[in-house]
Amino acid sequence: MRIRLDLAYDGTGFHGWAGQPSLRTVQGELQAALATLLRVESVSVVCAGRTDAGVHARGQVVHVDVAEPVDPEPLVRRLNGILPADVRIRRAVEAPSGFDARFGALWRRYAYRIADRPEVVDPLTRSHVLAWPRPLQVDAMNAASALLVGRHDFASFCKQREGATTIRTLEELTWTRESTGLLVGTVRADAFCHSMVRSLVGCLIAIGEGRKPVEWAGEILRAETRDPAVAVVHAHGLTLEEVAYPADSELAARAEQTRAKRVAGD
Amino acid sequence: MRIRLDLAYDGTGFHGWAGQPSLRTVQGELQAALATLLRVESVSVVCAGRTDAGVHARGQVVHVDVAEPVDPEPLVRRLNGILPADVRIRRAVEAPSGFDARFGALWRRYAYRIADRPEVVDPLTRSHVLAWPRPLQVDAMNAASALLVGRHDFASFCKQREGATTIRTLEELTWTRESTGLLVGTVRADAFCHSMVRSLVGCLIAIGEGRKPVEWAGEILRAETRDPAVAVVHAHGLTLEEVAYPADSELAARAEQTRAKRVAGD
Repeated sequence: MRIRLDLAYDGTGFHGWAGQPSLRTVQGELQAALATLLRVESVSVVCAGRTDAGVHARGQVVHVDVAEPVDPEPLVRRLNGILPADVRIRRAVEAPSGFDARFGALWRRYAYRIADRPEVVDPLTRSHVLAWPRPLQVDAMNAASALLVGRHDFASFCKQREGATTIRTLEELTWTRESTGLLVGTVRADAFCHSMVRSLVGCLIAIGEGRKPVEWAGEILRAETRDPAVAVVHAHGLTLEEVAYPADSELAARAEQTRAKRVAGD
Repeated sequence: MRIRLDLAYDGTGFHGWAGQPSLRTVQGELQAALATLLRVESVSVVCAGRTDAGVHARGQVVHVDVAEPVDPEPLVRRLNGILPADVRIRRAVEAPSGFDARFGALWRRYAYRIADRPEVVDPLTRSHVLAWPRPLQVDAMNAASALLVGRHDFASFCKQREGATTIRTLEELTWTRESTGLLVGTVRADAFCHSMVRSLVGCLIAIGEGRKPVEWAGEILRAETRDPAVAVVHAHGLTLEEVAYPADSELAARAEQTRAKRVAGD
């Protein structure tokens, strides 16, 4: 039996998602809580978005396979009773047939939050909002973002790994000034390579400040190689907000298709 | 010369606003930062709302008198450079003639935030949102709140102090379910007595849960004495959001009027 868990976490106190011996990770905490609850020696969970150290989540999705059938609904209260306060389970359901949290996902949506004026900086949200010392021009950032949307080789914005593809479909990249004055970037793609969102934001902040022209975003993209002028911004402004899956009837086909692409190096 | 400072703080790490020797308080941190900056031995600040231990603020207002004239605007950046990250100055201006942060205020507005379902609990906002284990009925809470609005003796909701009046004008008390699912109470009054907002919220939560009928709020109010059935809810859900002042031309008259009332025990 496969269970789908939806969870949220404050990434401040974690060395990212992925379990590493002797480091506190979200995966490690969740697997330990599940093992305690299910009275088994160890449990493996698979997640939709392997967030880096310091990155937060409101809409992380995982699946876990259990040998003995369990009633999923009480898992929310019971897991939250074991887990530390910086990880909260929001929903637990029996996964539909063919569901795979990682390979079944259609897209991942992240938000990057920036307070770029002293009157907007809020100590209550300082764990997940970047305080930036200079004002940013949202129109310039949106114009530059539009140059990056689409299917491209994002090598300029990715930490290179031997043999891994950096071609991604960036489906949305927009900036909104909220009523509170907060600047919020929405970034949505089929998948992201390592540090990609934070590099995109670093490029766009330089443009928002006026240090670089709007066209610079396109030049960096076309260069297809890392440019030291593009900063990788702080992790703490970044939150995984939502992961989307196809209708239940399409789940198995989608997971199969994604897996096949990965094998083909795409 | 009198300076008006607008500030925000995360109350988690403070023993409230009011300066106490050997305890970390917002007033203590702010006065120490001002003394460093102004190169004087000590500074006294006067605030609009003396928040209790654990209570937060986004719209706290203080005034401070300085012997030597200073340019207020650079104070924002300079004070924020000295202050710890859980206190932020949002604005610094020369106070208009007759301005008094405490006695000049027309009203104080607080928000109380509650996450009453697991899918709404957000680890990123756990410092300032109360996680409540049972769902609350917003309509019942609003009906009961309406019974409390107006000028009344709020002795039932106040920690008694010898000789002090507990008559207050509660100008607004409403509950809203936000799009995120968060339940937010707005409480606005000319002034509050000690623990009043948290007692009002404790009474309304009992009604929202269905443990008490709507009319109970009116019964408690009319009793004019503390009832142990009314819980004082946790401080960390409470935030001072805004303090309002009259137009500059009315400032001196307002402060004079408030001071006279206080002397008359009202």
